[in-house]
Amino acid sequence: MTKVKLDEIDHQILDMLIDNTRTPFTDIAKKLLISAGTVHVRVKKMEEAGIIRGSSLTLDYVKLGYAFIAYVGVFLEKTHQTKFVLERLEQIPNVTVAHITTGKFNIFCKIRAKDTNHAKNIIFKIDDIEGISRTETMISLEESINDKKRLMHTIFNEL
Amino acid sequence: MTKVKLDEIDHQILDMLIDNTRTPFTDIAKKLLISAGTVHVRVKKMEEAGIIRGSSLTLDYVKLGYAFIAYVGVFLEKTHQTKFVLERLEQIPNVTVAHITTGKFNIFCKIRAKDTNHAKNIIFKIDDIEGISRTETMISLEESINDKKRLMHTIFNEL
Amino acid sequence: MTKVKLDEIDHQILDMLIDNTRTPFTDIAKKLLISAGTVHVRVKKMEEAGIIRGSSLTLDYVKLGYAFIAYVGVFLEKTHQTKFVLERLEQIPNVTVAHITTGKFNIFCKIRAKDTNHAKNIIFKIDDIEGISRTETMISLEESINDKKRLMHTIFNEL
Amino acid sequence: MTKVKLDEIDHQILDMLIDNTRTPFTDIAKKLLISAGTVHVRVKKMEEAGIIRGSSLTLDYVKLGYAFIAYVGVFLEKTHQTKFVLERLEQIPNVTVAHITTGKFNIFCKIRAKDTNHAKNIIFKIDDIEGISRTETMISLEESINDKKRLMHTIFNEL
Amino acid sequence: MTKVKLDEIDHQILDMLIDNTRTPFTDIAKKLLISAGTVHVRVKKMEEAGIIRGSSLTLDYVKLGYAFIAYVGVFLEKTHQTKFVLERLEQIPNVTVAHITTGKFNIFCKIRAKDTNHAKNIIFKIDDIEGISRTETMISLEESINDKKRLMHTIFNEL
Amino acid sequence: MTKVKLDEIDHQILDMLIDNTRTPFTDIAKKLLISAGTVHVRVKKMEEAGIIRGSSLTLDYVKLGYAFIAYVGVFLEKTHQTKFVLERLEQIPNVTVAHITTGKFNIFCKIRAKDTNHAKNIIFKIDDIEGISRTETMISLEESINDKKRLMHTIFNEL
Amino acid sequence: MTKVKLDEIDHQILDMLIDNTRTPFTDIAKKLLISAGTVHVRVKKMEEAGIIRGSSLTLDYVKLGYAFIAYVGVFLEKTHQTKFVLERLEQIPNVTVAHITTGKFNIFCKIRAKDTNHAKNIIFKIDDIEGISRTETMISLEESINDKKRLMHTIFNEL
Amino acid sequence: MTKVKLDEIDHQILDMLIDNTRTPFTDIAKKLLISAGTVHVRVKKMEEAGIIRGSSLTLDYVKLGYAFIAYVGVFLEKTHQTKFVLERLEQIPNVTVAHITTGKFNIFCKIRAKDTNHAKNIIFKIDDIEGISRTETMISLEESINDKKRLMHTIFNEL
Repeated sequence: MTKVKLDEIDHQILDMLIDNTRTPFTDIAKKLLISAGTVHVRVKKMEEAGIIRGSSLTLDYVKLGYAFIAYVGVFLEKTHQTKFVLERLEQIPNVTVAHITTGKFNIFCKIRAKDTNHAKNIIFKIDDIEGISRTETMISLEESINDKKRLMHTIFNEL
Repeated sequence: MTKVKLDEIDHQILDMLIDNTRTPFTDIAKKLLISAGTVHVRVKKMEEAGIIRGSSLTLDYVKLGYAFIAYVGVFLEKTHQTKFVLERLEQIPNVTVAHITTGKFNIFCKIRAKDTNHAKNIIFKIDDIEGISRTETMISLEESINDKKRLMHTIFNEL
Repeated sequence: MTKVKLDEIDHQILDMLIDNTRTPFTDIAKKLLISAGTVHVRVKKMEEAGIIRGSSLTLDYVKLGYAFIAYVGVFLEKTHQTKFVLERLEQIPNVTVAHITTGKFNIFCKIRAKDTNHAKNIIFKIDDIEGISRTETMISLEESINDKKRLMHTIFNEL
Repeated sequence: MTKVKLDEIDHQILDMLIDNTRTPFTDIAKKLLISAGTVHVRVKKMEEAGIIRGSSLTLDYVKLGYAFIAYVGVFLEKTHQTKFVLERLEQIPNVTVAHITTGKFNIFCKIRAKDTNHAKNIIFKIDDIEGISRTETMISLEESINDKKRLMHTIFNEL
Repeated sequence: MTKVKLDEIDHQILDMLIDNTRTPFTDIAKKLLISAGTVHVRVKKMEEAGIIRGSSLTLDYVKLGYAFIAYVGVFLEKTHQTKFVLERLEQIPNVTVAHITTGKFNIFCKIRAKDTNHAKNIIFKIDDIEGISRTETMISLEESINDKKRLMHTIFNEL
Repeated sequence: MTKVKLDEIDHQILDMLIDNTRTPFTDIAKKLLISAGTVHVRVKKMEEAGIIRGSSLTLDYVKLGYAFIAYVGVFLEKTHQTKFVLERLEQIPNVTVAHITTGKFNIFCKIRAKDTNHAKNIIFKIDDIEGISRTETMISLEESINDKKRLMHTIFNEL
Repeated sequence: MTKVKLDEIDHQILDMLIDNTRTPFTDIAKKLLISAGTVHVRVKKMEEAGIIRGSSLTLDYVKLGYAFIAYVGVFLEKTHQTKFVLERLEQIPNVTVAHITTGKFNIFCKIRAKDTNHAKNIIFKIDDIEGISRTETMISLEESINDKKRLMHTIFNEL
Repeated sequence: MTKVKLDEIDHQILDMLIDNTRTPFTDIAKKLLISAGTVHVRVKKMEEAGIIRGSSLTLDYVKLGYAFIAYVGVFLEKTHQTKFVLERLEQIPNVTVAHITTGKFNIFCKIRAKDTNHAKNIIFKIDDIEGISRTETMISLEESINDKKRLMHTIFNEL
């Protein structure tokens, strides 16, 4: 796990992109008193080093009618089915996160649905995947924190 | 929960931004055979409607030395402390997600740390928050899926 | 537990009332070839014996916007608070059923709410009752059976 | 989920029927200073809208020798058997309620029996349904609340 | 469940036999100022009524080298095997008690063994019974109360 | 744990007493072709050695109206209260067995009651003992085996 | 379990070897004012009696890159596979301890790995052993005590 | 975590010491065709680097009368007491291992005792430590594997 060395300029660029991915390079350049080309080169470098893997939109799921979040713990029949089951889970777009975990579950997923009834159908789809013996669901009553920016700033301040 | 009406053009713009938030509006305009101004107006509209709330970088946490992910279930002493505890959790940047949940936990968090020892310190910090009586931790052995794009495309195709 | 003796006529009257509480006594009388007065006397007798305690409307909660059902298991701090806590639970109209139970819970309730957010507020109200140390919630994804008529017919056929 | 609009008169009619389903329409009419015909039309309208689905007797199960209540959590072998199993459960009249649930159970039922021994036989009947792998039972020591009227009044006051 | 009527004399006889099953009838007769024949007739009557089913020695298992007590919870593959499994359990003399239970276990047993190693062999024998899928064991660190005499006296004082 | 040495004659005497504690010594003597005095001496010896601690009646609890059996797991606030709590439990005659156990419970009891309602009152009495924080109850649906004689015979055949 | 008798000299020899297995016999002899030959004879005697079974190096696993410790609870399909499964576990050198246990697991293991990812591979290897139906893992955040010397000194002081 | 570089000779020395810590350096030297001085220097180096931290005797605990092994899971009242509690645990020599763990326990210990009764006393001593709210015990029925040598050989072959 060879870590990439980032200097002060890189950190400041990242700090600005974390707050708004769409910040134009010219704005960043102006703030840091460097050329837009330098910004471009630095970002390119961090993308090639694999530190920046892309960017994603932050949508308001409630406004889009997807207010229902649940965590689904999956028990497999046999662990060697893990890879196969993860591929099937990936085909269900409502499964936005999936982990292989310690503890009582083999796989632990996060799903987003429209409402109780929609969630039931997604859970049934998961339950029907070959190799899954049982699932246990925990419903979110409120997503109080969902924010990686605080962590990103911390990481770059630490580097 | 009054949903905003989006037309075909809006969907196509969103579809492109989902894949790459930094896609220049001129590129989008060219592809959709509309003016860059129209793209700008449409995106503005969706931002004002609150559908697009922003954008975030996707970093490679493993490359950055943050390979350790855990889910922490929190038991409160009394439920009326929920709001207070969530504010304290928000002060720990390693807590990237927190939900009020049904089932045995009151609050359910996701944390990112460098390694076992770092995780221990974060969990101890959580355990020391006033109002928390106990926590239970589940370690991720592999983050196999973490991708909202499949869901976003599905949502916009459905609208 | 001294059981009341019911004869064949009583059973037939009950059978008809079970299917529709509002069936006029004259209709029942006609079907059973007895006088309406006899029906009246018999029903009165069963009410006085305490077998018939009343009647209740069957509403369509989904149509009324109350589609969310959850079961809430309650842990008390001390069991001698049971009676006190049940009186507080009775003041929350969304708690439609409550049992003192064996197993891990002290009290087990059924609640009806509008949606996830409404359920959260009701659960928080329950959690705040003095004497309750913790609750665990199980969400209903579908109320597939809710029908006492099959049992009532069975009971009267058995008597 | 398009809700029906009810006016003040409708609410008052419902309020009276909730307290006693058998209240004659003429009594309701007198109280509300409207004609019995109007009451009839209003009730008809609410029945056709599906808000009122019927009425049911409230019996004293203890007096009838059915004092034993238990909740039975069902684990299925595979979730796609849910529908099939629910149909089998419906054939057992002692199963008065059944839900598809989140959490550790697939289906959660309420049963009424005469005593411990009778309950054992009903649970064995449930256990023998094809597709059910295991059940867990929780016994009610006292049914302290079973009353939908408080909720019904609340709902109509809210509308 | 038709209960037998016992009078004051019967109670006093039972009270003495509870304390020492071997008390000679002549001693009982002397104490109660009745004839030994009457004692004999009364005891006979209670035996025939099935109230007294026999008597058993109270041994000191620790002195006999059987100091190890464990409770074993049994999970069956299918409940219809209950009767068959109980017959197999009865063939293991170390299983002194077995119940069909509610809760997570299907059958719950008490076993007495010489030591940890002996207990292991008995548990393995139980685990190997056809139809048993799994067992869970709870070890007794001390048998603090094992005494039915207090209850017997209470019952007879109540009658 | 110094074990007492028993010879063949002792075993045969025990074997007969196990089957019926009230077997007269003269009968035992006749069967074993020894004098009644010898039987008396041997039994005395085993009583003094503490192997035989007494004898108890076997009653038919169902006929006596005590058909309800439950196992109650007790959680203590602090373990040093164990002795105190056991003394309180001993004052409740319906607690016929109590063990200090490994696993999730501190103390594990067996209770006999008349019915569900009676069991509730006993459990409430247990719950109210100072030092007990919580209890969990498991109901017996059928006492299928309760027989120490098979074990006693085995032990004496082994000696 | 016939225990070997050890005298004061034996204890003192053991006490020194416990602190450092490599202490030369001449050093021990000097301290105890006996001949090195006597030390040799005593140690030989204790080895032959099987009390001393050997000696092992204490390595610094963290320095060697093996900082990750986990406990893995194993559920078997059928208990008669226990011996077979233990033989397979023995072929995985990272399984340093394995016990047959009471409670919910059949077998309970301790494993040492390099990191989360390595642990995942070892757990998958365990999960794939024929006869194992499921495993549950508990991660060590810190090995705070791992020291048998305190116990060894206690045992020898007690003898 | 800077790892020390070890060469082939070091590995072979370690391999021999792992099998028998008391192997004289002259024997090792002969086998590897190097001087005893070289062996001495190499071992010294590994000790100074902290890789070899010492050596310990392997005793036969069963022969010494310590046949009883249990795992004790500890729940703390508050996590900030962890360090304090670990210091108290270290004063009980029967606690040979203790970990801070994820999952439901805060601390997880291994204890060795003489028998059930001795174990009870040790567990009670643990339970009485200030800051511990509850413990759960799992008994070992057989220590099937306890062997770090297989892992040590693997580690040195890997280096």
